[in-house]
Amino acid sequence: MKILDNIRVVLVEPIFGGNIGSVCRAMNNNGITDLAIVNPRPTTDWDDARKLACNAKAQLDARKEFKTLKEALADCTVVAGSSARTGFYRDTAHSPRQFAPIALNSAKDHKIALVFGREDKGLLNEELALCTHIIQIPSSEQYTSLNLSHAVMVCCYELFTAAEVFQPSEEKAEEANSELRERMFATWREMMIQTEFTHEQKLEHMMMGLRRIFSRGKLTVPDVKILMGLAKQSIWAATQGKESREL
Amino acid sequence: MKILDNIRVVLVEPIFGGNIGSVCRAMNNNGITDLAIVNPRPTTDWDDARKLACNAKAQLDARKEFKTLKEALADCTVVAGSSARTGFYRDTAHSPRQFAPIALNSAKDHKIALVFGREDKGLLNEELALCTHIIQIPSSEQYTSLNLSHAVMVCCYELFTAAEVFQPSEEKAEEANSELRERMFATWREMMIQTEFTHEQKLEHMMMGLRRIFSRGKLTVPDVKILMGLAKQSIWAATQGKESREL
Repeated sequence: MKILDNIRVVLVEPIFGGNIGSVCRAMNNNGITDLAIVNPRPTTDWDDARKLACNAKAQLDARKEFKTLKEALADCTVVAGSSARTGFYRDTAHSPRQFAPIALNSAKDHKIALVFGREDKGLLNEELALCTHIIQIPSSEQYTSLNLSHAVMVCCYELFTAAEVFQPSEEKAEEANSELRERMFATWREMMIQTEFTHEQKLEHMMMGLRRIFSRGKLTVPDVKILMGLAKQSIWAATQGKESREL
Repeated sequence: MKILDNIRVVLVEPIFGGNIGSVCRAMNNNGITDLAIVNPRPTTDWDDARKLACNAKAQLDARKEFKTLKEALADCTVVAGSSARTGFYRDTAHSPRQFAPIALNSAKDHKIALVFGREDKGLLNEELALCTHIIQIPSSEQYTSLNLSHAVMVCCYELFTAAEVFQPSEEKAEEANSELRERMFATWREMMIQTEFTHEQKLEHMMMGLRRIFSRGKLTVPDVKILMGLAKQSIWAATQGKESREL
């Protein structure tokens, strides 16, 4: 999808190879593939990166490397820097959810970037100055420091969700219509009588309760068949019991 | 906050200690602290778990261990199982965002649970049968398998966000009023004249452009002071230039 292709994730001087690999996986889960690394460290453990990238190894190998953040951002319009702290240049922050429509609006026609700093020091002020937006990920006041790949995951997830590519799976079985539902309730009513579950005067009250229970979600045709079959069997068993008592 | 205290994260037979530690960190970032592990493996690398838990080590140490999922869920009302696949028992899935209000509504008064399966096999059908809800995390069709701690992060993040504990930091400086803004625009207009930036007939057109540029976000009093000071200085410099040319 073109709009997601226009989103670049930029990591500035990441320390741990494992985090780079986890970032690739998080990006890939959200259909985002353009990864740039600014000033990669010679000490980077690329084996660890490949291990944690899992099925996103191709993407790790396709990464672009830049000497400076400025070069990594040159072709980008909207540039969002992630920051846990507030203060200088950070006074007005957007949450990833607030930022998503801004980003996607630009990504329709232009490359945009999400920038993440070092695991220990984040982004420097001169790096944040290159950003048009500051993103602050909601977190507990007691513990605001996110793992790098978790921060990337949340931002990519918000963009992916806002792009509305994904639809959660829905119940495929046909929904039961009123006629079928009422036949089922009639059977259950009969079961309550035959099993001597309740006094006659409480019967309608019980039926109202049952109707509430079975109306809480979408009741499908297979659901009704199970429920009706169960009630019929129970009526049969109760009748058998009565007959044997009457013998 | 009580509502978040009522949320339990349950990991069923996790394989990698590092993932358990990362899960603790992700939970902690979102103010969620109740961790249960079902049938922990004797091969678990707890050193790795502690390393990746970072500042959430106390929480890792406070984890509860259970022999079966049934025992881990005994005191919970709403129970959501995370699943990447659809099919048997998985036909109606909620996204974490759809699930959040359902969960929080119950968590006001009751313990609720988020259940995550093994890294390789997820949750078994008999485990999903113990769940009242199935959660499916939005992901690219090309790559639906999330890292365990990433899945926990997204679910906890959605619950934390829906609980509205967090407010992104806002601009603290006072917003400039119209009188101040207009004084600034007058100074910029003067600067354009003095620096001979534009022809007289294009001046008002340029001013409209400038007004648009400076009205895109909240313009604060300190912002206006910088912009006005810059224009005044530019006027001064331009005037100096003219004087020297006139000499």
